[in-house]
Amino acid sequence: MTDAGGTPMTGAQCLVRTLIASGVDLCLTNPGTSEIHFVAALDSAPEMRAVLGLFEGVVTGAADGYARMSGKPACTLLHLGPGLGNGLANLHNARRARVPVVNIVGEHATYHRALDAPLTSDIETVARNVSPWVRTSRDAASVAADGAEAVAASYGPPGQVATLILPADVAWEGPGTVADPIRPRRPAAPDAGRVEDVARTLHAAGAEGALLMNGAALSEEGLVLAGKVAAATGARLFSDTFVTRAARGAGRVTAGALPYLGEMALGLLQGTRHLVLVGTRAPVSFFAYPDKPGALTPEGCAAHTLAEPAEDGLAALAALVEALDATGAVPVTAPEERPPLPRGALTPETVAQVLAHLLPDQAIVMNEGATAARAVPGLLARSAPHDWLDLTGGAIGQGMPAATGAALACPDRKVINLEADGSGMYTLQALWTQAREALDVTTVIFSNRRYAILEMEYRRVGAGDPSPATQGLFDLSRPDLDWVGLARGMGVDGMRASTAEELARGLRRGIEEGGPYLVEAVL
Amino acid sequence: MTDAGGTPMTGAQCLVRTLIASGVDLCLTNPGTSEIHFVAALDSAPEMRAVLGLFEGVVTGAADGYARMSGKPACTLLHLGPGLGNGLANLHNARRARVPVVNIVGEHATYHRALDAPLTSDIETVARNVSPWVRTSRDAASVAADGAEAVAASYGPPGQVATLILPADVAWEGPGTVADPIRPRRPAAPDAGRVEDVARTLHAAGAEGALLMNGAALSEEGLVLAGKVAAATGARLFSDTFVTRAARGAGRVTAGALPYLGEMALGLLQGTRHLVLVGTRAPVSFFAYPDKPGALTPEGCAAHTLAEPAEDGLAALAALVEALDATGAVPVTAPEERPPLPRGALTPETVAQVLAHLLPDQAIVMNEGATAARAVPGLLARSAPHDWLDLTGGAIGQGMPAATGAALACPDRKVINLEADGSGMYTLQALWTQAREALDVTTVIFSNRRYAILEMEYRRVGAGDPSPATQGLFDLSRPDLDWVGLARGMGVDGMRASTAEELARGLRRGIEEGGPYLVEAVL
Repeated sequence: MTDAGGTPMTGAQCLVRTLIASGVDLCLTNPGTSEIHFVAALDSAPEMRAVLGLFEGVVTGAADGYARMSGKPACTLLHLGPGLGNGLANLHNARRARVPVVNIVGEHATYHRALDAPLTSDIETVARNVSPWVRTSRDAASVAADGAEAVAASYGPPGQVATLILPADVAWEGPGTVADPIRPRRPAAPDAGRVEDVARTLHAAGAEGALLMNGAALSEEGLVLAGKVAAATGARLFSDTFVTRAARGAGRVTAGALPYLGEMALGLLQGTRHLVLVGTRAPVSFFAYPDKPGALTPEGCAAHTLAEPAEDGLAALAALVEALDATGAVPVTAPEERPPLPRGALTPETVAQVLAHLLPDQAIVMNEGATAARAVPGLLARSAPHDWLDLTGGAIGQGMPAATGAALACPDRKVINLEADGSGMYTLQALWTQAREALDVTTVIFSNRRYAILEMEYRRVGAGDPSPATQGLFDLSRPDLDWVGLARGMGVDGMRASTAEELARGLRRGIEEGGPYLVEAVL
Repeated sequence: MTDAGGTPMTGAQCLVRTLIASGVDLCLTNPGTSEIHFVAALDSAPEMRAVLGLFEGVVTGAADGYARMSGKPACTLLHLGPGLGNGLANLHNARRARVPVVNIVGEHATYHRALDAPLTSDIETVARNVSPWVRTSRDAASVAADGAEAVAASYGPPGQVATLILPADVAWEGPGTVADPIRPRRPAAPDAGRVEDVARTLHAAGAEGALLMNGAALSEEGLVLAGKVAAATGARLFSDTFVTRAARGAGRVTAGALPYLGEMALGLLQGTRHLVLVGTRAPVSFFAYPDKPGALTPEGCAAHTLAEPAEDGLAALAALVEALDATGAVPVTAPEERPPLPRGALTPETVAQVLAHLLPDQAIVMNEGATAARAVPGLLARSAPHDWLDLTGGAIGQGMPAATGAALACPDRKVINLEADGSGMYTLQALWTQAREALDVTTVIFSNRRYAILEMEYRRVGAGDPSPATQGLFDLSRPDLDWVGLARGMGVDGMRASTAEELARGLRRGIEEGGPYLVEAVL
């Protein structure tokens, strides 16, 4: 095909046009030589916004956060196998979040691979771990159609990572062919019989029934429906320990997250005899421990699937409300009860109180605060309405990048990134992208200067007390990290807070002035 | 087995003992819950030094640098598939460097995998890309023998990455069995007939002969032998563009590196009719470009393999010297000709002059300076004797970690890390490990605030002139990185240099005072 001026279009140009027509208009990238023709194609496609990350883990984590808040994929543009490898951990998290992401991974020219040049590697194999859909484009005539298929695959349902490998000569050759844009497939609603069964079960179970939810069921609309189910039957409402996105805060129906520790989750579910799964699977322990169970459905409790993750959890809840004749039921919603501003020393509790006191309306809260943020969700549930995003796949280094992507998706909303110091160090380069793009992200570093979760886990796995040498592996002091210095080094202003008063001042500054800001909360 | 006190040993304890007995006494790690029993086993094994990295790319890159300088593997300890993924790019570089690395990758307990907990992934598939030897341990009785096999596999020859996946229950169960330690296999010498053929060819070729070398051939001893070959035959001496390790500097035989740009490499080899390969393969272009050749052996030139990468390049050169009857030949060595200290503005040339003027004796120079460091090798060749390490696999983010590992291997030598700003941002967390371990590394950041190589490549691939939007993707300003602030944020002191005089002052400070230090050379 030719462009408006009659010039034949390259494969890369046709691919970019097709992506844009399919609704993909954000390219998150750290490109290299093999991707330059794709970069050049962006020049003639101003509808596609290109955003640079200084490390690929930033790029892929931002694609995850963007998809969670926009409901559609961004495309990444990555440099061969190593570039994809650098982004793998956050693609793992995106896979667990079940969100759509389209990777474009540059590759050597088709005829160059046989030479085994230094950057040659088996890109398809790297991709397969996180990406059920993988394809290497063959020629300029078919690459745009490959791109459209990648977008379609990314939507699933459920959402997933799709990876298109783009050899350099496929990108630079022409004339290519623009392909028809795709529209996402809608997830299917569960069949009526299953809904009827669940309705009967919950009706009979009363307070011994419970819903465990993730995905669309945790949207504001989904939670209203779940609240009607609870009001009509007495069932309790829970979410997965780590959610892709949940509507929370005052005026909303609360679905408490299952605790991270298996014994606590089992304790909370004790007395539940019927656990209904909506957009998730039966709960399991995050890790195995000697002499502790891995499956967390209590003895004597039956699990019932109302909607698989690939199905329409929202439609399933609506059908369940109908089946229960509960459309008129009045859900219990959380009142607004903000704690007063605390004074004095910073603790996990006082940090949570400051956050709950000051949270602005409709904020997006990305949580990678690990153990130190444990008090936050409970208090925020009665603060301003907000969207809550979790680290979904356990691969730390998601918070700063996903907050960056959420801010790209929602420029009119405040993003608050709750970040553990150990996790934050994985992908701190995201702060630079926040500065360059002037993104409205306030980062709160929970600076306890250690991998506190590992100290706890060391004892839980039965290894006894760590020696001083082992403690050194869990310790982030010697030397202390200076997070304000690190942030300023990347163009993000910030302050260190050692008291609740200082944290309140810093958080206010971040919230009120807009743009990126960082507060190091020294615990 | 039981320990000295009669307590049964876990699988992890037996593995650690066997690694130590096999000569592996450095564990580079960022552990998680699934690795805690290995961490606990380190408590009873003080012979194994454990060093923490704040990101796995630091861990694997340090293992590469350590292996280059010590000749033996360190073990990494990584957290499941995502931890390995984060280390993949530098394992790719280690693979291309052909150095031994032993990965220990924690995994869920064997019975926990079926639950598909959030961190579950296909670790073997992630590993295969970089690691020809991959095994998942089955039980505590066999895990130590698996570890010994992994060490043996890592030595090759040639050296390679070996990956042992360690399920948590295999680590924590017992009693395990300690295995016999291994001794590395020696590479084989090439057969005499091949040596005779090459000797005859070079003898006849005179100045139309050349050697292209990598690996052990570039050791001081290997280069003396190559120098005798050159003296006896007139052959020219070259190294690969990117070398694992080369002895360079005054008093040594110089083997100039082939230029990065294919057309320049072809130009340099013009007139060569017989190219003898020692520890490497025939040269190829790093990337493909429209209308440029990928193979860089000139027309009319025959390539002859004296020693494959898996063979003993040193023994091959010694045999070649014998076959040429050249044991008494006197190699040409580089004189010491340090440039005077320049004054005024910093340019790639003046930076190189300052380095060549001040380089201390027996330094280890890790080069990831990209385009801005182009003038350095030529000037350092006539400065103090040193070991030179390159980015071998093209996956940027190797310099700071590999410098860290080199310093761990050689605590009595000064490490100078020449680092491009774009590459340095990939794995800047290495600076924290340098601070914690008080490593003697002076980092020189070539701060040109852009991916200059991509600007050049954009034109070379025929894409024309980049638009302002595209230039933004090659640009590391807006905001500028403050490298001194970043370093101080991780406990490494530093200074910014805008003139040659300032750079000299900073470099002297780094060299004379010891410990980690960073100089940002603003170009």
